[in-house]
Amino acid sequence: MKVAGKHFRTIWLNEDGWSVDLIDQRWLPHEFRVENVRDVEGIATAIRDMWVRGAPLIGVTAAYGVAIRMREDPSDAALDAVWEELHATRPTAINLRWALDEMRNLLSPLPEAERSEAAYARAAEIAHEDVELNRSIGKHGLEIIKEIARSKKPGEPVNILTHCNAGWLATVDYGTATSPIYLATEEQIPVHVYVDETRPRNQGAHLTSWEMAGHGVPHTLIVDNAGGHLMQRGMVDMVIVGTDRTTAHGDVCNKIGTYLKALAAKDNGVPFYVALPSPTIDWTVRDGVKEIPIEERSGDEVSLVWGRDEGGKTRQVRISPDATPAGNPAFDVTPSRLVTGLITERGIAEASAEGLAKLFPERAKAAA
Amino acid sequence: MKVAGKHFRTIWLNEDGWSVDLIDQRWLPHEFRVENVRDVEGIATAIRDMWVRGAPLIGVTAAYGVAIRMREDPSDAALDAVWEELHATRPTAINLRWALDEMRNLLSPLPEAERSEAAYARAAEIAHEDVELNRSIGKHGLEIIKEIARSKKPGEPVNILTHCNAGWLATVDYGTATSPIYLATEEQIPVHVYVDETRPRNQGAHLTSWEMAGHGVPHTLIVDNAGGHLMQRGMVDMVIVGTDRTTAHGDVCNKIGTYLKALAAKDNGVPFYVALPSPTIDWTVRDGVKEIPIEERSGDEVSLVWGRDEGGKTRQVRISPDATPAGNPAFDVTPSRLVTGLITERGIAEASAEGLAKLFPERAKAAA
Repeated sequence: MKVAGKHFRTIWLNEDGWSVDLIDQRWLPHEFRVENVRDVEGIATAIRDMWVRGAPLIGVTAAYGVAIRMREDPSDAALDAVWEELHATRPTAINLRWALDEMRNLLSPLPEAERSEAAYARAAEIAHEDVELNRSIGKHGLEIIKEIARSKKPGEPVNILTHCNAGWLATVDYGTATSPIYLATEEQIPVHVYVDETRPRNQGAHLTSWEMAGHGVPHTLIVDNAGGHLMQRGMVDMVIVGTDRTTAHGDVCNKIGTYLKALAAKDNGVPFYVALPSPTIDWTVRDGVKEIPIEERSGDEVSLVWGRDEGGKTRQVRISPDATPAGNPAFDVTPSRLVTGLITERGIAEASAEGLAKLFPERAKAAA
Repeated sequence: MKVAGKHFRTIWLNEDGWSVDLIDQRWLPHEFRVENVRDVEGIATAIRDMWVRGAPLIGVTAAYGVAIRMREDPSDAALDAVWEELHATRPTAINLRWALDEMRNLLSPLPEAERSEAAYARAAEIAHEDVELNRSIGKHGLEIIKEIARSKKPGEPVNILTHCNAGWLATVDYGTATSPIYLATEEQIPVHVYVDETRPRNQGAHLTSWEMAGHGVPHTLIVDNAGGHLMQRGMVDMVIVGTDRTTAHGDVCNKIGTYLKALAAKDNGVPFYVALPSPTIDWTVRDGVKEIPIEERSGDEVSLVWGRDEGGKTRQVRISPDATPAGNPAFDVTPSRLVTGLITERGIAEASAEGLAKLFPERAKAAA
C-alpha cells in the first residue's frame, strides 16, 4: 500500500534483478527503513531478528533467500544447506517451512543451470499469490462494508474496529483484516478505523496506525480497554480482525484480547468478522478453547514498553516495579458462537463446521 | 498497608503535631517519596499536581490544609480564603468540596481560639472514618473470598483479578477493591491477584502492583487483553473492582475496560464484584449507559507511556506515529446485569434498585 503517496510492498526484487529490498519493520512507526539484502545471511537475519514478520511475508522472504543462494551456487548441497539455514531462523513458523519445502521440491528435479531462474520466478509467484489471496479476501469483505455504508447518511464513515496488525505489513500487500478497508478507500467509500493499540507488543500502535496514516485512511488509536465502551455508544459498525489459526468448527485463535472484543460485539449487536486465508484453517482441531495450547511469552514484553523519547531516540522504559512478575499469554480463542462470519478468499463462511465445509468441501473431506 | 515491612497510610500527621506527611505518588512504582508539607500552598500543590489522588484521600488532604491554615490564622477571612484556594485545585472533585464544606461548617460557629484544635481533630476523624469504611467493605468482601477458599485444596490460592487502582493509595488505608484482599492476607488465606495494567494511565502497573509487592501479596501483572483468556481457562476465581459512580439501579461507572472484564466474567461464570463506599452511589441516575457522560481525556495519555529507562531515569516515550490521533474515553459503564454483587460498608447488595434500597432504605427513599 502507500507510504507518503508512493506504493510499496513489504518485499520486492531490487532493480538489479537479483538482490532483495524489504522494509525493516523493527523501527516502525518512528523510522521507515528499507534494506537491500544481498546474501542468505542477510535474509536469515531479517527473518530471525523480525525485520519482517507475519506468516506470508516470512515465507516469501525465505523463498527469495533460496533464490539468492541458487544464483551463487545451484548445487544440491547448497540447496540442502540453505533449507537448513533458513529453517533454523524461526523453526516454529509453519509458513517458513512450507515455502522452503515448496522451493526445494521445485528445484531438486531441475538441472543446476535452470535452478536460479526457476527459483526467482517461483519466489515472485509466491509473493503474487499472497497479494491475490488478500485481494480476494478484500473483495468479499468489501461487500460487507458497502452494505453498512448504504445504511449511512452520505459522507458518514463506516466505523471499523480492528485489533493487532493483520495489515499489509504482515503480508506482501493489502493484508487480511485490512484488505477490505483498503479496497473500500480505493472505491472512495468513507471508512474510519479504530485501531486497538494491542498490548503488550503494541502492533496496533506501531504498525496498523502507521499503515493507516501512510495510506491516508482516517483512523483513531485507542487503548484495548476502550472498544467495549465505543460499541455500547454505537460508535463501531463492525469489527474485523485477523487470525493465526481457525479450527474446523470456526473457533478463532488470534492475538490476546480478541475474545474480549468479540464479547462486546455480541453484547451490542455489532457484527464481528474474522479475515483469514484458508491455509490458516486447522482442519484437525475442533474446540479451540480446549485443544489449542496458548504460547506464554516473556513477561518483559509487558513490563518494558518501547517508543521514541523526547530527544528522538528509540528506547524501552519499565512501567512496573522490579518485584512484580508479569504473565503474558500471547493469544486467546474466540468461540465460533461470537463470530458473525469468516471472510476467506472464496467468500464469507458461517463460523461453523458446516459453514467451512460448504466453502472448502475438498479440504473438510480430506480431514474427515 | 505495608511498604517493605513498615506500615504506612497515604497521609499522616507529622510527629511535630501540626505539619503533614504524605506519599508523593507521582513517582511510584520507581521511587517511594514521602513529603513533609508545612503550608497551604504545599497542600494545594499536592492535590493539584496529583501527588495524591483518589476521592477519599483528596478530601482528607484538603481537611489537613484547612487545619494548617487555622493554626496560622483562625480568622473568618482565612477560613474563606483557604476554602477558595483548595477548592480551585481540582474543582470537579466532589469529595474535595465535601471535605472543605464539612470543615467550614464545623469551624465557622467556633470561637477563633478553638478552631485550630477542632480542625486537626476533625481532619484526623475524616481520615479515621475512611479507614473504618474501607475495613467494613473489606470484612464483607472477605466472606466471599473465604467461601471460595473453602472450595480449594489446602494451600491453593484464591485467584482474584482487579482493574485499575482501587487500592490503599486511593484512600487513607486498605482501599476499596483491595480491602478484602488485605484482610484475607491478615487471616492467612492464600490469595493471588491478577493485576490489569490498566491502560492508558497504567494505574495497575504503577500503583496496584506496587501495593501488592510492598505488602507481600502474591500477584502477577497482566495486560488488559489477558483477563478474558485467563477466565476461559479457569484461572480466575473472582473479579473485584472499584467504582467512581454507581447508579440507583446498580450500573457501575468505573475505569475504561471494566465492562470488558464483566462480560468475560459473565461468559465464564466467574463472580464479578464491585467494592464501593455508599457515598459513591448516585441516587439520581438510573441507566448508566444512557445517562452518564463519559470524560474524554487527552490522547497524549494513550500515545505517551511513562516509565523508567535503562539508566534509572523516569521519562516518557511515544508509541505511535505523530500523524495518528488518539481517542481516550476515561470510563465505561458496566450494566448491573453483569454485576454479581455490590460490596458496601453495610454488606453486599444485589446490583439492582431493590438490592440497593434494601441496604440503604433511608437514602433510596430520600431520592425517590
